[in-house]
Amino acid sequence: MTRFRDRAAFDRALAALPGPDMLAREAAASRQASLTKPAGSLGRLEEIALFMAGWQGRERPRAERIRAALFAGNHGVAARGVSAFPPEVTSQMVANFHNGGAAINALAAACGTELMIVPIDLDRPTADICDGPAMAEAECLAAINAGAAAVRPDIDLLLLGEMGIGNTTPAAAICAQVLGGEAKQWAGRGTGLDARGLERKQEAVRRALALHGEACSGAFETLRRLGGREIAAIAGAVLAARMDHVPVLLDGFICGAAVVPLARDNAEITGHCLAAHCSAEAGHARLLEALGFDPLLRLDMRLGEASGAAVAAQIVRSALAAHAGMATFAEAAVAGGL
Amino acid sequence: MTRFRDRAAFDRALAALPGPDMLAREAAASRQASLTKPAGSLGRLEEIALFMAGWQGRERPRAERIRAALFAGNHGVAARGVSAFPPEVTSQMVANFHNGGAAINALAAACGTELMIVPIDLDRPTADICDGPAMAEAECLAAINAGAAAVRPDIDLLLLGEMGIGNTTPAAAICAQVLGGEAKQWAGRGTGLDARGLERKQEAVRRALALHGEACSGAFETLRRLGGREIAAIAGAVLAARMDHVPVLLDGFICGAAVVPLARDNAEITGHCLAAHCSAEAGHARLLEALGFDPLLRLDMRLGEASGAAVAAQIVRSALAAHAGMATFAEAAVAGGL
Repeated sequence: MTRFRDRAAFDRALAALPGPDMLAREAAASRQASLTKPAGSLGRLEEIALFMAGWQGRERPRAERIRAALFAGNHGVAARGVSAFPPEVTSQMVANFHNGGAAINALAAACGTELMIVPIDLDRPTADICDGPAMAEAECLAAINAGAAAVRPDIDLLLLGEMGIGNTTPAAAICAQVLGGEAKQWAGRGTGLDARGLERKQEAVRRALALHGEACSGAFETLRRLGGREIAAIAGAVLAARMDHVPVLLDGFICGAAVVPLARDNAEITGHCLAAHCSAEAGHARLLEALGFDPLLRLDMRLGEASGAAVAAQIVRSALAAHAGMATFAEAAVAGGL
Repeated sequence: MTRFRDRAAFDRALAALPGPDMLAREAAASRQASLTKPAGSLGRLEEIALFMAGWQGRERPRAERIRAALFAGNHGVAARGVSAFPPEVTSQMVANFHNGGAAINALAAACGTELMIVPIDLDRPTADICDGPAMAEAECLAAINAGAAAVRPDIDLLLLGEMGIGNTTPAAAICAQVLGGEAKQWAGRGTGLDARGLERKQEAVRRALALHGEACSGAFETLRRLGGREIAAIAGAVLAARMDHVPVLLDGFICGAAVVPLARDNAEITGHCLAAHCSAEAGHARLLEALGFDPLLRLDMRLGEASGAAVAAQIVRSALAAHAGMATFAEAAVAGGL
């Protein structure tokens, strides 16, 4: 299924976002108030239960079918030495995902989520964003649709993540372009770049902005010019999930950067998303603040692969277990608060 | 089995704490460095794996047998109106734990931990700490041993939690006594106390400190005079776990307060403990800082019952799953960092 036939269909979907089911959310809030605990004492677990109730349209939301969708792409800009790892590591890691040896395999198994690996044209890196647009219009649309294809309405929670050597550079470029600020505020050390590599990376971001800045007229064009295939896929998945009322758990800096162009066009897009964690990548805290996210975890992770989302998914699962499984004051014959 | 025959046995154990297995910890660190991810990119998950390796004495530590031990006690000081709930709620909630209806039942099930409920003499509340010592020496020793009895050397991770209407008042008194500061910095709203109740609570802490302050000569005497049965039990469990090399995940404010007198006598006691979360209770952040803990979660929870520990246990489980399950660079034929 091709979710978005053309750029205009993508733009229309982004302009007409459905909202949560407020009746289900209110029913969940009433249930929370009746459970055997001091009101509000489960803190964010209670908020998460209400969030999930609203997007799933159920008083007692489920966390049975959780899918982690991990998109991989290669980047022409990687040839500029903007990563601590060589570009062939992207496909080597995809093989590692398929063989079950990566962090996300262990973490997805630990939290009982399905893992979907979506490499997108790894043998055709995007064009170097310092020289021209990363993708042609059809390529960007295909990547967006590859992301949307990972979404099904029967998914209870969608975790989004990525792998792509060099992809913190386009992510930083998108953030600097849309959110403002200097290249050095957004371009961090990624997988462990040294000082000279960091300088090359910041220079790449500056060149990309100088080349594309004025042409980045909207979400699609920003993703096409400054993004990458896995970044566009994440944007497509976020939008498709909203259309299908599927709540989303965003992983790290690159995931967040994929949402930034969407949020400029329609700030409501973050409504069905939770930020899994604040990573150690330099720009992530600033990015989360700009998007209005309070991340669930702060564990200094900086791996990508949906690894932070897979850890945070357990918090969502816990929140829903308490919401659905606890007795009410009346059921348990416990005296309420004064 | 009675772990501590008398007060002197408790003191001796606290003075002679065993350390972690540094060889196992170093072996785990070597393994971490070989796994298919940028060095350090799993952040605190890596630290947790090393922490667990050291205390379990295994290069690949396990999280198969996790026990949540939940101690309950009643408090004479509750008669002063220092809680939003009446004292009979302690035993009502214990019944709720046994019937599976409380938050901890749902959360323990969600994280696959065994739940052990240990009510201690609920029909005999401790004496009002404003009038005299909470417990006689034999009572305090019995509570400490009840805590120690929840520890077995084959437990991979011990979660500690509590229930006891009014128990944030003795916890606040312990913190103020040992760590200094005014009553109002330690006595917070607990389960949801109103302004007048908060004033009564702060006054109770001031009276208890005036009565017992000079007599609190060490850990045992502080627990006996200002504590409660579940608080002394947690202290006993923490010490017994250390003797058995069992790593501990502490829940909230009351759990932390139980460790405070131990830490004054021997600062090394926190070495085998992790703080699960920073709760919304006023004094908890200050307490964690005083003990040198960086909590795993900040979710504004304030329920007790080991609820925060049960959520954080999943982070430990994730950390160990990645540590044990990931492939090395050599195994996966992935190129290492530059």
